[in-house]
Amino acid sequence: MNNFQYHNPTRILFGKGEIASITSLIPPSSKVMMVYGGGSIFKNGVYEQTKKALKGFDVIEFGGIEANPRYETCMRAVEQIKTQNVTFLLAVGGGSVLDGTKFMALATKYTGADPWDFMLGKTATPNSALPLASIMTLPATGSEMNANFVISRDSTQEKFGGYSDLIRPQFSVIDPMTTTTLPIRQTANGVVDSFVHTMEQYATFPNNGPLQDRQAEAVLATLVEEGPKAMQAPEDYDVRANLCWCSTQALNGVISCGMPQDWSTHDIGHELTALYGIDHARTLAIVLPGVWRFFINEKKEKLAQYGKRVLGLNGSVEECASQAIQKTEEFFESLGIPTHLKDYGINASDAARMVSDRFKSRNRPGFGERGLITPEVIYKIIESRA
Amino acid sequence: MNNFQYHNPTRILFGKGEIASITSLIPPSSKVMMVYGGGSIFKNGVYEQTKKALKGFDVIEFGGIEANPRYETCMRAVEQIKTQNVTFLLAVGGGSVLDGTKFMALATKYTGADPWDFMLGKTATPNSALPLASIMTLPATGSEMNANFVISRDSTQEKFGGYSDLIRPQFSVIDPMTTTTLPIRQTANGVVDSFVHTMEQYATFPNNGPLQDRQAEAVLATLVEEGPKAMQAPEDYDVRANLCWCSTQALNGVISCGMPQDWSTHDIGHELTALYGIDHARTLAIVLPGVWRFFINEKKEKLAQYGKRVLGLNGSVEECASQAIQKTEEFFESLGIPTHLKDYGINASDAARMVSDRFKSRNRPGFGERGLITPEVIYKIIESRA
Repeated sequence: MNNFQYHNPTRILFGKGEIASITSLIPPSSKVMMVYGGGSIFKNGVYEQTKKALKGFDVIEFGGIEANPRYETCMRAVEQIKTQNVTFLLAVGGGSVLDGTKFMALATKYTGADPWDFMLGKTATPNSALPLASIMTLPATGSEMNANFVISRDSTQEKFGGYSDLIRPQFSVIDPMTTTTLPIRQTANGVVDSFVHTMEQYATFPNNGPLQDRQAEAVLATLVEEGPKAMQAPEDYDVRANLCWCSTQALNGVISCGMPQDWSTHDIGHELTALYGIDHARTLAIVLPGVWRFFINEKKEKLAQYGKRVLGLNGSVEECASQAIQKTEEFFESLGIPTHLKDYGINASDAARMVSDRFKSRNRPGFGERGLITPEVIYKIIESRA
Repeated sequence: MNNFQYHNPTRILFGKGEIASITSLIPPSSKVMMVYGGGSIFKNGVYEQTKKALKGFDVIEFGGIEANPRYETCMRAVEQIKTQNVTFLLAVGGGSVLDGTKFMALATKYTGADPWDFMLGKTATPNSALPLASIMTLPATGSEMNANFVISRDSTQEKFGGYSDLIRPQFSVIDPMTTTTLPIRQTANGVVDSFVHTMEQYATFPNNGPLQDRQAEAVLATLVEEGPKAMQAPEDYDVRANLCWCSTQALNGVISCGMPQDWSTHDIGHELTALYGIDHARTLAIVLPGVWRFFINEKKEKLAQYGKRVLGLNGSVEECASQAIQKTEEFFESLGIPTHLKDYGINASDAARMVSDRFKSRNRPGFGERGLITPEVIYKIIESRA
């Protein structure tokens, strides 16, 4: 196990009716901006519950954050935050709303030329942020209990991740009731997103972390068990609660303590969203099996361990690793998530060339847990997902 | 799953050489009291590493905290803290040192008559504490990442637990290297302590927490796997690292999120320490199987699940539950931890009467996850551990 630091001060309020608890957690004289997305919170009761809890605060609203939050939209919000002297940001919605809010919190305080400088591969380091919190209505990104955010920029067709300890939510409310009305497509996307988050921190190589391995397998096994139930019985509170908690635990930093991490499926997947507009989780379902098959020798021990412990497979390491990949594709497909580019009418060679060229132009060093992901490898992985 | 709040802002610094990292984490102009125990830190290099990291700070030392930290000793430290205007407490040692330090942090700021009022069953609620942090050298109590502490009082032969969010460590260093020189007895005690902490939050009844169940089983399986290795190869860093991380994860609040908890083994065990001076973990190894056998009908589903998933048992729920208790006793004994009162030369009926009478005199309502633990039940449980 490697040395590590773990520090996660976000307060979680979990369960039915917990939105009402936020009143005492926001500093009393705050000027609050309530940030939301396309309007689902008007249909599921979350808007009313939130407004009620915010009674007595000076509140302005900013709606219309997109499913992949756009830099351009966030910068419009930043203007309002500044002119209206907002002191506290409350994200109400899914991971995209929260990610956009995190970016706004940093951008508002940034004195440099362009806050896009914070994103992956850029050089600026933020040193101040507005305080923020969230009411999370979609179990998927884990954004409610971490320091990550992902933003897309129209003008450059880029989608990049960022990280700053300054934008950890002060608190996050997770009320599983608010997720029972999610469209089936978003429910399935959320399961796959949480699943792949876990795998990015697990399916690498053994590193003497038996507890971390088992904690990751705990999340994987629960997603494999509960995900299909949510497809069958979308209004089951217990199932939704389990999916919500899996999603948070998948990406709050616990399972990766002292362990190697991959994240190449995410980095490649982001390009497919940026170029073709495919839902984030769906890009992961396409890319992950390609990364795994390409690096099966490097990853076989962990893939076989997953196969045996989570999927109940038997056989040699090679057999279990190979079957585990196959079964994972079947799991994604069983949730209605396609795993090949042709399912989206995309020519794999074209996509492989375009994505590979983008990485080439960035001169990024090899990435993934062994630093082996190069533009040439990316080409082959995407080509294999025809 | 029940509604819950989770908030744990302690920063963990884990791994070889991490004591050196504390320099930047203590507020610059602090007057530090370094609190330690019987002197093991002078033999394992921890004292030198800590003093080096504290160079530049104004530091005083307070040694001699006992294995069961005594109220009387803590109050002597509090006097020094006040007269010397100490502003930051650094606990260096095992859980007893840290628990004592937590109590001191509260007692220093308490304006009421006697800080013993904070302990279990009393009425005073602390509202202020000195800031504190820890360098944890013994994986057992989990005190490094929680808000709990346990204190003993000579004059009344009492041992009580306390809880306050005010005394969560600001940071805790866990360097597994510092644990490789632990006596075998303390290593074994630590494994059993962490194991029973997990069981107090797990071996109750099913409550629709499949992720929490598996997270608890992850800790249990790793302790069962790594504990015996530490007996065989005490200097193995990897094994020590795994035991350390299990200990922290067993009692940082994650596995009990939304789940019922028992803690009757601890409450009964505390009395055996208070009356007979038996090591804390060893009292747990005596009491736990007694609680389980007495409530086997109430606990059988979870005991069987543990038996199947962690111990690899097969059979009916009843068979697996019964075998799981037997195998757990054998596990404790295999670590050199006796599980019966006669092993300590104690008459079980006498002990049963004395402990039962103590609970009777406190008029405490029934406790345990179903509120069924009464003085009469305590009598029978202790009597069964002859």
